[in-house]
Parts: sequence; C-alpha cells; structure tokens
Amino acid sequence: MEFIDVAKKRRSIRKYKADPVPGESIVKVFEAARLAPSAANRQPWHFIVVQNEETKAKLVGNQSWAANAPVVIVGVADPEASPNWHYNDLAIAFEHVVLAATNIGLGTCWMGQMFRDAEIKKLLGIPDRLKVVAITPLGLQDEEPAPKARKNLNEIVSWERYGGKSP
Amino acid sequence: MEFIDVAKKRRSIRKYKADPVPGESIVKVFEAARLAPSAANRQPWHFIVVQNEETKAKLVGNQSWAANAPVVIVGVADPEASPNWHYNDLAIAFEHVVLAATNIGLGTCWMGQMFRDAEIKKLLGIPDRLKVVAITPLGLQDEEPAPKARKNLNEIVSWERYGGKSP
Repeated sequence: MEFIDVAKKRRSIRKYKADPVPGESIVKVFEAARLAPSAANRQPWHFIVVQNEETKAKLVGNQSWAANAPVVIVGVADPEASPNWHYNDLAIAFEHVVLAATNIGLGTCWMGQMFRDAEIKKLLGIPDRLKVVAITPLGLQDEEPAPKARKNLNEIVSWERYGGKSP
Repeated sequence: MEFIDVAKKRRSIRKYKADPVPGESIVKVFEAARLAPSAANRQPWHFIVVQNEETKAKLVGNQSWAANAPVVIVGVADPEASPNWHYNDLAIAFEHVVLAATNIGLGTCWMGQMFRDAEIKKLLGIPDRLKVVAITPLGLQDEEPAPKARKNLNEIVSWERYGGKSP
C-alpha cells in the first residue's frame, strides 16, 4: 500500500478476530522494524512475540480485550546499547511494526507499558538491564473505528520561529 | 511508494542539493506527522520549519553540513499535553515526517538534540515548558549512501519469552 495510505488507514484497534496470524506476516512486521533508523545505528531494540493464551492474558493486565488478538508483541529498549536514545529509537522501530502491520492488513494498538516494566520483565524473563516500553496486539481487526480528530496543521507547525506563520 | 519500499529506501542523508523544497512538499510531510498515533490522542508535538540561512546555521550548531539543506525541521515535545508519553509520541510523529519525506523523494537525517534544548529554545523563541527532541534537514539528497548493516532478526526477536526461539 502507498505510504500515505498506510498512515491514513492506521487505527488503534481494540477488537480482533481469532484467526491466527501466519508466521510470515509476523516476520514481515519485524523486517520493517529492523530497517528503522537509530542513533549511531545501535538498534537498541528487542521484540517478544507472545501467542500462548495464558501468557497473553497476564501480559495485557487489566486490558483484557488485547488478549483476544492472536499475537501480542512486546517492545523492549536497551539502555546499555544506547544510553540517551534507547526510548526514542524503540519508539521509531515500534511504529515501523505498527505501519508494516497496517500495510499487510493487520490491526495493532500502541499500549505504553513503562509503568509495568518490572511485572512484564518478570513474566517474560527479560533481563533487568532492559526497559519494557510498549505492547501491541496484532491480528485481523474486527471493528472499523472512525478516524480520530487531529489538530490542524497550523496548530502543530510554525515557520522560522515558534508561533511563526506560514509564508 | 509502497510502504516497505519507503522503509527500505530511507537513509540518513548528509549531503543535500541547494534546490528549494516546494511549500506543498513541506505540507505533505506534516500531513503524515499529523496522522501519527499518540497516547490518548494528545498529539503532544510541534514542528518548526526553518529556511532562513542564518537561523539554519545557528540551529545545526557544529553539524554545519546539515545547514546545506534548504530546510531544517525542529521537533518539539509538549510535557504538559502528555506528561509520560511526549517524547515517545514526538518520536513517532517525527518518524512519520522522515518516512513521508522519503516517499516524496526528499532526504532527511534524524539528529537528536535533547542536549541542546536550552540553546535551540532561545534561538527559536520556543516556550520553556516544551522540550526540543530532534532536528532533521530536508531536501533533495546529493549522495546515495549504501544501506547500513542491521542486526539479524533472531537477534532482535524472541518468541514467548526473552531469548525464546522461533517455533
């Protein structure tokens, strides 16, 4: 799909069909993550693919709707690999996952999990030195949410100086 | 361009042609940024487009090559709009800028600038409450860098548990 159509089509999906996601589709989203830019090309990211029902249920905590997706992906940042940019670079790579999933017809939903770092690390055997940043369900969407409102361009873009108007 | 081809084509570009970037192209990259997801749809981001030669030169500091691009974009996060997720969400939207630029044939280069927050805020009249995260040049590229090495998928993806092998 054309890039801008992917950006337009992406939604936060909270209802999923039970159909399994083929292994090749999972690999495709990580191929896109792998291509993400990172400071000094350090690639300070790791992803865990969870498909086991019991693990998914624990992983999503009180957001039980997310465990209905056949796959839940965990995004982990590595502060040793990139002390200043690990969060930033994980966010970039995680968004590549989200856009790549949209591109092949799969739904996702960014769910920030920094506040559940310790709990998720324990659940999945993730080393202490890493930081859990976000999870997303991955699967066929079972809803068609309307687009959410967005700020106007003139609220989010300035020219030459903060608050400067378009020339 | 197909999404995955955009992800594959993107490079960090450090040599630019002087050709100006049409206003419509600049608007296109922010249309893509505007569609980025954010926690609770707070859109805690702002972008400043700098085209003035003197301002660009100051903005890029000792990375003077970046001022050769006709445009430099500043990405600013808003902690009041989203106390926990402003950095994360700015990173997502900034990557939309980068991918959208690639999609229309323009080069960019993520340059983290958190360490120059105070200096850049003063230069561009950015309010104290905001945080400068990154800048990127934007323009026609004047080099064709080879792809950088990437970690293998089995280094960045685990299955079911950290370190778990592909099923």
